Amino acid sequence: MSVIDSMGQKAKACKGKIAAASTAEKNLALMEIAKALRENCGEILKANRLDLDKARENGMSQSMLDRLALDEKRVENMAKACENLTGLQDPVGEIEGGSVRPNGMRITKVRVPMGVIGMIYEARPNVTVDAAALCLKSGNAVILRGGKEALSSNIKLAEVMRGAVQKAGFEPDIIQLVEDTSHETAQLMMRANGLIDLLIPRGGAGLIRSVVENATIPVIETGTGNCHIFVDESADLQMAVELTDNGKTQRPSVCNALESCLVHKDIAEKFLPMMKKRLDEHNVEIRGCNETARILGSCVVPATEEDYAREFLDYIISVKVVENVDEAIAHIAKYSTGHSECIVTNSLENAEKFQKQVDSAAVYVNCSTRFTDGEEFGLGAEIGISTQKLHARGPMGLRELTTIKFLINGSGQIR
Amino acid sequence: MSVIDSMGQKAKACKGKIAAASTAEKNLALMEIAKALRENCGEILKANRLDLDKARENGMSQSMLDRLALDEKRVENMAKACENLTGLQDPVGEIEGGSVRPNGMRITKVRVPMGVIGMIYEARPNVTVDAAALCLKSGNAVILRGGKEALSSNIKLAEVMRGAVQKAGFEPDIIQLVEDTSHETAQLMMRANGLIDLLIPRGGAGLIRSVVENATIPVIETGTGNCHIFVDESADLQMAVELTDNGKTQRPSVCNALESCLVHKDIAEKFLPMMKKRLDEHNVEIRGCNETARILGSCVVPATEEDYAREFLDYIISVKVVENVDEAIAHIAKYSTGHSECIVTNSLENAEKFQKQVDSAAVYVNCSTRFTDGEEFGLGAEIGISTQKLHARGPMGLRELTTIKFLINGSGQIR
Repeated sequence: MSVIDSMGQKAKACKGKIAAASTAEKNLALMEIAKALRENCGEILKANRLDLDKARENGMSQSMLDRLALDEKRVENMAKACENLTGLQDPVGEIEGGSVRPNGMRITKVRVPMGVIGMIYEARPNVTVDAAALCLKSGNAVILRGGKEALSSNIKLAEVMRGAVQKAGFEPDIIQLVEDTSHETAQLMMRANGLIDLLIPRGGAGLIRSVVENATIPVIETGTGNCHIFVDESADLQMAVELTDNGKTQRPSVCNALESCLVHKDIAEKFLPMMKKRLDEHNVEIRGCNETARILGSCVVPATEEDYAREFLDYIISVKVVENVDEAIAHIAKYSTGHSECIVTNSLENAEKFQKQVDSAAVYVNCSTRFTDGEEFGLGAEIGISTQKLHARGPMGLRELTTIKFLINGSGQIR
Repeated sequence: MSVIDSMGQKAKACKGKIAAASTAEKNLALMEIAKALRENCGEILKANRLDLDKARENGMSQSMLDRLALDEKRVENMAKACENLTGLQDPVGEIEGGSVRPNGMRITKVRVPMGVIGMIYEARPNVTVDAAALCLKSGNAVILRGGKEALSSNIKLAEVMRGAVQKAGFEPDIIQLVEDTSHETAQLMMRANGLIDLLIPRGGAGLIRSVVENATIPVIETGTGNCHIFVDESADLQMAVELTDNGKTQRPSVCNALESCLVHKDIAEKFLPMMKKRLDEHNVEIRGCNETARILGSCVVPATEEDYAREFLDYIISVKVVENVDEAIAHIAKYSTGHSECIVTNSLENAEKFQKQVDSAAVYVNCSTRFTDGEEFGLGAEIGISTQKLHARGPMGLRELTTIKFLINGSGQIR
C-alpha cells in the first residue's frame, strides 16, 4: 500500500467524527492550534531557518524567499487567522432549502463537509496552517503536501497542529502531512479516487497544469494569475499609475499581482512615461510591443507571445498598446488565466462592457487586482482562488469546502 | 483541426450572445423548439425507427430498447418539457451577494452561464432535447455527443432544434451534435481545455469511468446508481415490499432504480418470501448471500462481490442479510456509487443514523429511491444526477449549469 493509500485510509477512518463535530468542538480545536503555534513559535522559526538556509544555498529568488520566510509576526498572523476562524459562521448543517412534495414526502437539502480534502502546494508554509484550519472548521479531514522547500517548516507546523487537535479531542489524523515530497506522492494524490474527495492545488502554473492533466479525482484549479490592467482612453492617468504600481510591485510574488498592462493608443504617449517613472522606483522590467518601445525607448525588452501569456511573479510587466476596449477584451480572452482583470476608465459604457465580456473570476473597475483575496472580499478566510468555473470561482472560503446532501422522509411513497 | 476543435471554436464564437440573451429571448427559442418538435414528430419517429431496427438486429436488451424508443407521447413530452422550462426562473443575472467594503469598493457576486457545455451520453434520444433546452435556458452553448445507437434520432432532433433556435434569432451553433460517434471524438471532448467549460457524461458505469479517468476539463460525474434499500428490524414489511418492488421493477433501466436489498437478520425469514413473491411477478432474478439462499431456496443465484458492486439496470437484484443498521451502512459505504439509498424503518434512531452516516446524494427514509429526479424534487427539470460532491450533488437543474463572477467597482483603491 502506498503512503498516500495509507494516509487516505486513515483520513477516511476519522472523517466521520470531524464531519459530525459541533461548531463549538471545532472552534475549541482552532483555539488550541492558535495557542500551540504561539507556544512553539521559537521552534517553528528554527525549522523555517533550515528551509531558508537551504533555499539561499540553492539560489532561490528574492520573491520566492519572501514566500518561504516566517518571522514572529507571520507566526502570530497564523495564530490570529485560526482564532478569527472561530468567529466565522459554520456552513455545516445549514439547511439550503427543501419542500414538502405533493405526495407528502419531505425533502431537505443540507450542507455537509466534503470528507477528505487534499492540498498540494508550494513554498509558502502559512498555507499549511491556513488549509488545515479551514478544513477543520468546515468539518473535513485534510492531507497536506507542501513543497520540498518548506519541508522542515511544514513538518514542525503539522506536528504542532496535530498535538493541538488531539488536545481538543480529535484524532490527530484529521491533519496529515505528506513528508515525501517526491513527484510520485503528488501523482498518487491526484489519482486517489475513493479516498480523497477534493484536491486543491495551490502554486505556479506548472503545478496546476500537472494536476489538471493527471488528476482523476475532483479538482479545483487555483491561483494562476496572469492579471491584466487596461488603461482606457478616458482613464484618470494618475489613478492608472497608482493601480499599475500597486498591482505590480506591492507583492509581486502572489497570484493577484498584475502581470500585464494594456494601454489605449490615444493616451499611450502620455501614460507610458508616467508609468515607467513610477515602476523604475522598483526596477520593474518592461516587456513591450513595438509601440511601447517607440514611446519608452531602448529600455523596453521586446515582448514575445510567451511573455503575454506568462505569470512573471516578479518585477517584470508585459505592456501592449491597443486600439480600444474591444482589442483589450480580445487580448485578455486570449492570454488571461481567468483570475483578475481591471479597467481604468471614466466611460460607463466601457466599464460595463469590460465587466460583462471579460470572463474572469474577478473583474475590476478602477481598483487594484490585489484585492482578489478572501479576507479582502469579506469571506473571513481563504483556501485559494479558483480560476475554474465549477463549484467555486474566485476566493474560496469555508462554504466552498462543503457540499450538500438531500434527505428525503416519507411514509411509503412510490412512483 | 479536429472536428471537436472546430465545433468548440464555433461554440466559443457564439457563446457570448446566448450568455447575454434576456430570459424572454431564451424562452422564445424554447417555444420554437417545442413547436418544431411537434411539427416534425413524424420525421423524428421515422428516424427513431431506423435506430430501433438496427438495435433489434444487434440484439439490444429490452430495457435498453425501452430507453431508445420514441413514440408520439414521448415526443410530446419532450415538447412539453421545453415549454415547461419557460416557466422556470432564469438563474442568469441573479445577484448572489455582495457588499461595500470598508474602503468603499463595491463587490457584487453575479450568476453567469458556464459558457460551453459538453454532454456525452448513451442511448436515450430524449437527452438530446432535454440537455439542449436546459443549456439554452441557462445561457450556455452546448456540444452534444449521443450514442451511436440513437444517431439517426439525434441527428433529426438536432436539426429540428437548430432550425428552431435560428428562427428565434440565435446562431444554430449554440446547439451542435457530434455525428462522429467514435471513441475518438469522446476522448477529444474530454480534453478540450479552453473550448468546453464543463463536461457532463450521462450513461453507464463504463462511460463515467472513462470520463473520470481521461478528462482534463471540469467534469460532473452523473448517474451511476448502485442504489440500496435496507429493510430494518422495525420496518413495516408490507411497505418494504412495495418500496423494493417499485424501486426495482417500475423502470429498471434508470439510475435511481434499486439494485440491492439489505435485510435485517431478525426479519429476513418473514420478509424475504414476501419480497420474492412480489418480485416473481416481474421474474426478477435474485442474487443473494448464503442466508438468503437458505431462506428462499435454490432459486437464489449466489451473489459475488461483483454483484454487490454492480448496477444491473435489469430485472436482477442483489440481496444480503445483515446484522443491523451499522452493517448496512458499512456495506453501502463499500459498494454504493453515492446516488440514492433508502432505509425502511420505524426506529427514529436508526433513521437518523442512516441519514447522517450514509454518504450519498439522496438518503431516503420510507420512500422509493425512484424519486431522485429533478422533476420529482421540484427543480422543474434535470440535466443529470450528480454522484460527485463538487459543484452539484443529486439532481441538477438550471442553476447547476451556471457559475458566478465577482464584479468590483472602485475609485482608485489600492492595497
